[in-house]
Amino acid sequence: MQHFAEILKDKIDNLNKPKGSLGRLEELAFQIGMTQQTLSPELRHPMHLLFGADHGIEREGVSVSPREVTWQQMANFTRGGGGVNMFCRQHGFELRLIDVGVDHDLSDFPDIINRKVAPHGTENFLYGPAMTEKQCEKALEIGREQVDAAYAKGCNIISIGEMGIANTSPSSIWMSLMLDLPLEQCVGAGAGLNSEGIAHKLEVLRKSVENYLSLSSEHSPSSLIHYFGGFEMVAAVGAMLRATELRMTVLVDGFIMSACALMASHMNPEFKQVAIFCHCGDESGHRLMLDRMGARPLINLGLRLGEGTGALCAFPLVASAVRMLNEMGNFQDNKITKYF
Amino acid sequence: MQHFAEILKDKIDNLNKPKGSLGRLEELAFQIGMTQQTLSPELRHPMHLLFGADHGIEREGVSVSPREVTWQQMANFTRGGGGVNMFCRQHGFELRLIDVGVDHDLSDFPDIINRKVAPHGTENFLYGPAMTEKQCEKALEIGREQVDAAYAKGCNIISIGEMGIANTSPSSIWMSLMLDLPLEQCVGAGAGLNSEGIAHKLEVLRKSVENYLSLSSEHSPSSLIHYFGGFEMVAAVGAMLRATELRMTVLVDGFIMSACALMASHMNPEFKQVAIFCHCGDESGHRLMLDRMGARPLINLGLRLGEGTGALCAFPLVASAVRMLNEMGNFQDNKITKYF
Repeated sequence: MQHFAEILKDKIDNLNKPKGSLGRLEELAFQIGMTQQTLSPELRHPMHLLFGADHGIEREGVSVSPREVTWQQMANFTRGGGGVNMFCRQHGFELRLIDVGVDHDLSDFPDIINRKVAPHGTENFLYGPAMTEKQCEKALEIGREQVDAAYAKGCNIISIGEMGIANTSPSSIWMSLMLDLPLEQCVGAGAGLNSEGIAHKLEVLRKSVENYLSLSSEHSPSSLIHYFGGFEMVAAVGAMLRATELRMTVLVDGFIMSACALMASHMNPEFKQVAIFCHCGDESGHRLMLDRMGARPLINLGLRLGEGTGALCAFPLVASAVRMLNEMGNFQDNKITKYF
Repeated sequence: MQHFAEILKDKIDNLNKPKGSLGRLEELAFQIGMTQQTLSPELRHPMHLLFGADHGIEREGVSVSPREVTWQQMANFTRGGGGVNMFCRQHGFELRLIDVGVDHDLSDFPDIINRKVAPHGTENFLYGPAMTEKQCEKALEIGREQVDAAYAKGCNIISIGEMGIANTSPSSIWMSLMLDLPLEQCVGAGAGLNSEGIAHKLEVLRKSVENYLSLSSEHSPSSLIHYFGGFEMVAAVGAMLRATELRMTVLVDGFIMSACALMASHMNPEFKQVAIFCHCGDESGHRLMLDRMGARPLINLGLRLGEGTGALCAFPLVASAVRMLNEMGNFQDNKITKYF
């Protein structure tokens, strides 16, 4: 009896095209067929989970934007005017906005799901852990629960976005410590710091890491996520882990979500089977991180908006791959001379 | 009074995002706004023009597939089973199939527009010009007329595809002679030649170029397109030139269409204003050609199917850019702290 992987490969190879001539689309089709264990996969009810939270480290001036932009943007997303909104509309994604610790009372916005782990966001990790272990567990659980809710609606493909001013900072530290890379190679401009700003950010992060290492020599994902993580990032990790268990496809966005994917793939190596790395941004270090993970992003449009916009923009390519499997004829049916 | 380009730039800069954070999408939005001379461009009635023809040079065994694949695939496209069909359906493109010289009677297929310049395709350019100057003019005119017909339907964005076994050969020669590059840097595997096949192809093309140069030292587009061109390629050049005059956006596909774009941009430099280079394929030389043209393709998925599939796959990114201009709020409207 043929193994399912071989049957799927055969189907792709015998579609009406020279073998391999649809390049990455063929790889995507194979991946999604394997994820769903079917020769005719479907992308059902795509959902975009956008987790928002604030970061204690923002107090150190590591980002170009002040923290109030986090809540203002979350509110703006409820009005449909953000980048994430237009791409969700374009590609038919249901958008879920989840407040896991935005430093503002958002109860006036019924479209924002209130799942605050802490009312003002994380603590400043320059001086100690960003969150307690219990908070970390709660944030993971919120991510898992949101994926369960999506799954219950019939969704089998999610993208994940984030809103959290200063969240490139914890991402850089996760990358540096998990991949054993010098911090300089992991720190970049975020949403638009100048070189002075980057130098300051690097200095703050270096001190933070020194403090951490004076307390602990552990580089495990669980210790790093609670010490440096943002609630929105830890929730994203939880979402990735749950999606892996449910064999749902996960569209991975830019630098921050790639850092979360790095953690998720250490916590459950099967995550990589369901993950599609969508976008390589300009953030210094992102390409390096993806290379180290063996991930080849689908597009590189120089996006650095966050929110999950890179993942959403790449979605049609994933849909093209699935369409190929379901709609393309094969040589035999179409009476075409097999190329080679 | 402010120049329109500045007003458009201002609009893009003040959308609800850090300046430049939507990267290539912002550039696309600017380009299309300029093409349509409006702050609120629209992509109307997208059409895919697929020109098919056979090549005399195919007789020299320069391609992996035999010439009958050209007509078989044209017929297959009428049944909806080709790569181009599924992507047209996915992105709402009307598909026009135009026979400009396929070596087969396709009159049984009413969906194929019969505009044959010659019933069996071009002559073998190893021994002389592929077509007469008169045929060349006719092929250009057919391309122009198809764009006029699209325009009359309200279309303002076209992509162009091709079906013509062996057409990477003339493309490589056009590239080599127009850009003054050694033929070795311009010749690749086409749809899947092995290294022996590539060596043979290179030898045939080298002899063809030697013969040409013994007759003419002219490297003008008009002399190169009639001597080496395929009818489908010359028709594509004509379509590009007419679309430029009508200020229609042109999605440029892979290696062959890039070679046509190279010609079109020499014949009318304004072509580059309306052209969007969509895909960088694996065909050896394609990246080099794009670099020399200053073109940065939107995606690189390793496609080498032809038919215009790379252009179609990139379309949603163009649509995202236009959506950004029309749907994204600005900082003022949305009461958000301007980032910087």
